[in-house]
Amino acid sequence: MIGYPTKKKISVVSKPVGTANRGLSFEEDINQSNAAFLDRNLAVIHKKPTPVTIVKVDYPSRQKAKITEAYFKIPSTTDYNGIYKGRAIDFEAKETANKTSFSLSNIHPHQINHMLKVKEHGGICFLLIRFSSLDETYFLSIDKLTEFTNNQERKSLPYDWIKTHGFLIPYNFLIPVNYLTILDKFI
Amino acid sequence: MIGYPTKKKISVVSKPVGTANRGLSFEEDINQSNAAFLDRNLAVIHKKPTPVTIVKVDYPSRQKAKITEAYFKIPSTTDYNGIYKGRAIDFEAKETANKTSFSLSNIHPHQINHMLKVKEHGGICFLLIRFSSLDETYFLSIDKLTEFTNNQERKSLPYDWIKTHGFLIPYNFLIPVNYLTILDKFI
Repeated sequence: MIGYPTKKKISVVSKPVGTANRGLSFEEDINQSNAAFLDRNLAVIHKKPTPVTIVKVDYPSRQKAKITEAYFKIPSTTDYNGIYKGRAIDFEAKETANKTSFSLSNIHPHQINHMLKVKEHGGICFLLIRFSSLDETYFLSIDKLTEFTNNQERKSLPYDWIKTHGFLIPYNFLIPVNYLTILDKFI
Repeated sequence: MIGYPTKKKISVVSKPVGTANRGLSFEEDINQSNAAFLDRNLAVIHKKPTPVTIVKVDYPSRQKAKITEAYFKIPSTTDYNGIYKGRAIDFEAKETANKTSFSLSNIHPHQINHMLKVKEHGGICFLLIRFSSLDETYFLSIDKLTEFTNNQERKSLPYDWIKTHGFLIPYNFLIPVNYLTILDKFI
């Protein structure tokens, strides 16, 4: 059994039960959910590493290589992908502190293009949007997103629109972002 | 049209036609092939970023964030994945200068476990193995690989065994590693 790096060892006893103040970031919540899916053999979905351009690497003797100069790159794809029930899964996850809307500037246009391509080839693509102040996370299919952007000039998705066209993702202590329950509607 | 970062601008005129001495690494050849697949809308397959643990980041004023301390991580998954004809694709690519065998130490055990998991959920998983001295690249399915490792004590795959149980990947100037032609046998 491999200790997957995304698996968080969280103390079950000492944590409060609510979703707020759990001290885990959205990314950690998703990683923990993905680790749980893997453990239960439900799906194989991983976060991709953060893309960086490595400029300088030091090789100190007897020590491991140390990167001393690198820069963050704009990602050309989404952060998460994998497989569920035989289907290729591809999604991007973003968080906002805003309570009334989600700015589309959070998503790079080529990430949307990437998801449209994956969808065209048979994959299932979506966004996970967390409204951190409201402690709510929504699943929004790429179809609904493009329906909006094709018909609206607005550069942000209103909260009410997301509530109507997306799906609230159930919270569970062991699987904080159980998006598979929503994915089942699309398979 | 997005200029995907993996797409190489190579000069068609000044390069020799043979596969040797083309000056492109195996990784570049695969990236170029994936870019061609994307251009022709055949498949959406990308290399994942190199996983690094970021320790220190400087934020010089008016300049972009600079990572000043980071370390290479052992990857928990494979380097390449995506979608082709509705199927999730997952593979690892390795090169050897050895002419008679391919050492299995090139592949991390959890990369093999990862591919077995992806396969179990309906994906197609394989290795691309380049014998750089022979200028040959082989496609080896995860099934053939586990067949070998389950029946042999050897820690390396003999070249002749790969030749028999794998598939030689055709070389094409525009698509240096056209593994889709082999994948078609598995779909």
